[in-house]
Amino acid sequence: MHFQTRSEKFSLTIFIFQEMLKDTVRTRTYQNVIYQNTFLFKNKVVLDVGAGTGILSLFCAKAGAKHVYAVECSHMADMAKEIVEANGFSNVITVLKGKVEEIMLPVAQVDVIISEWMGYFLLFENMLNTVLYARDKWLINDGIVLPDRASLYLTAIEDADYKEDKIEFWNNIYGFNMSCIKKQSMMEPLVDTVDQKQIVTNCQLLKTMDIPKMAPGDASFTAPFKLVAKRNDYIHALVAYFDVSFMKCHKLTGFSTGPRSRATHWKQTVLYLEDVLTICEGEAVVGSMMVVPNKKNPRDVDIMLKYSLNGQRCQLSKTQHYKMR
Amino acid sequence: MHFQTRSEKFSLTIFIFQEMLKDTVRTRTYQNVIYQNTFLFKNKVVLDVGAGTGILSLFCAKAGAKHVYAVECSHMADMAKEIVEANGFSNVITVLKGKVEEIMLPVAQVDVIISEWMGYFLLFENMLNTVLYARDKWLINDGIVLPDRASLYLTAIEDADYKEDKIEFWNNIYGFNMSCIKKQSMMEPLVDTVDQKQIVTNCQLLKTMDIPKMAPGDASFTAPFKLVAKRNDYIHALVAYFDVSFMKCHKLTGFSTGPRSRATHWKQTVLYLEDVLTICEGEAVVGSMMVVPNKKNPRDVDIMLKYSLNGQRCQLSKTQHYKMR
Repeated sequence: MHFQTRSEKFSLTIFIFQEMLKDTVRTRTYQNVIYQNTFLFKNKVVLDVGAGTGILSLFCAKAGAKHVYAVECSHMADMAKEIVEANGFSNVITVLKGKVEEIMLPVAQVDVIISEWMGYFLLFENMLNTVLYARDKWLINDGIVLPDRASLYLTAIEDADYKEDKIEFWNNIYGFNMSCIKKQSMMEPLVDTVDQKQIVTNCQLLKTMDIPKMAPGDASFTAPFKLVAKRNDYIHALVAYFDVSFMKCHKLTGFSTGPRSRATHWKQTVLYLEDVLTICEGEAVVGSMMVVPNKKNPRDVDIMLKYSLNGQRCQLSKTQHYKMR
Repeated sequence: MHFQTRSEKFSLTIFIFQEMLKDTVRTRTYQNVIYQNTFLFKNKVVLDVGAGTGILSLFCAKAGAKHVYAVECSHMADMAKEIVEANGFSNVITVLKGKVEEIMLPVAQVDVIISEWMGYFLLFENMLNTVLYARDKWLINDGIVLPDRASLYLTAIEDADYKEDKIEFWNNIYGFNMSCIKKQSMMEPLVDTVDQKQIVTNCQLLKTMDIPKMAPGDASFTAPFKLVAKRNDYIHALVAYFDVSFMKCHKLTGFSTGPRSRATHWKQTVLYLEDVLTICEGEAVVGSMMVVPNKKNPRDVDIMLKYSLNGQRCQLSKTQHYKMR
């Protein structure tokens, strides 16, 4: 068996860009933000951080931007150049191939920074630090960053079938006991779509990031939570998801990647609990979540979850560690 | 947009091993090969190349192997050690963490080499060279390699809807023309499941690899093909897939990853054609396929396809290049 092999099937790069473009919640929101708020872009100098195919830059150009600098470090930058030309925007959009931290921008300042930097669990392999770097280096004093708010949420779900399938699976593999993998498996947050019917508690806001003002270090945090059960049920996992908002629009615009919203390619992030919690209506799981970039590989995320339930049918207190990598 | 990010979602390693174990066509075939042919393993020294969780080594140990050396270079080797111990096979199975090319095997020779080395398109990011290296270094003269035969096949399919969705998609992206990506997109073989109803022609054997005898260089080859239409239809793509066989079994055992067999995690590999071929029953697409490892990155595969159709309604001759990376 060769993990390196089949893990990398998604390096079929074109299809990834396609999947992202086909995520209409994502792409249509950016399109609406730009086309319906041309006052933010008209005659402005825009920087697109991680431009990919250049779609956001094209939106901005069409909305009347004076000039757009589209920075992309992958080979997709070459495609983006061709696309800009094919659509007649060569005089408005300049594609710069390279890392934001290394390129020379032909202007000293920009009026607007736009980026689609969010990763799974908002922070996994994300480009937030690159956006903040660009903000501090080039954004004018009253410049705007789009999106300008990102919030991380937590809720709790019943997930008996899937937990059985993903975790208990290891108890008997063709007659062999591989249960030692269960612990490892439990530490890997699962990126998957959760049915809203599985939600047992309220949704708790963990952290709001104010992109124009935050410091890079603000992406590490510890947040308390209190999840109150809305019915008698079992809790097998906590689920994290995020919203992003574009507060500078004429009318508040944004999208959510939560289980009650239309599915996006970000899905949700499921953190399985070692024990099943038997919770009664009105009882609460209380605790805190600590989120920090991994020290060795800052694009990975370490999560520490402390939680306790002091209920009628179940009392327990635990700490669990997760690694997104 | 950040390709590195979302491409790597499958680095959630445990779930990959789970997907491979859940591929019952794959795992049950190995299990049957081993349990139903214990005469091949009884009192033999076995080398498991790329052992992963150690499942094949456990099968061999249970089948009566004298000793099994399970070589695995990823961190899964640590899990494999625990699993071997938990199942009471510590005295029979030795897990060696490291690369086959670098480890010190405690014995000079082995009687049997077993491995599940196959990648997508058989040869993409595969471990075949590692198996051949182990064979030449450690296998006794009349030793056996399992599997001992792998064959690559080609057929042709009608695939109007999906080609539209994957390739023509780029003509209009939220109002912009990104058709320059089509060419790039066409060069990326697509790993996907094909419905057998889509098959328009016969299936042509391209290449058989005789694992006990082949040289590493035999994985590069040029093979002619002739695909004869079984009905009037359109051809949008050629499709490659492979079979593996265990010829040393009491009764021929193996599996196919073709579109007429039960789906495996390898699926099939779809190579889209630039033009749609309008083919009449009895007419043939003739040509050749050249397969070579990429010079820069030998785990990648370069494919050159030459084909022509000299039919009643369609005459054309083309060369197309593909890169699996």
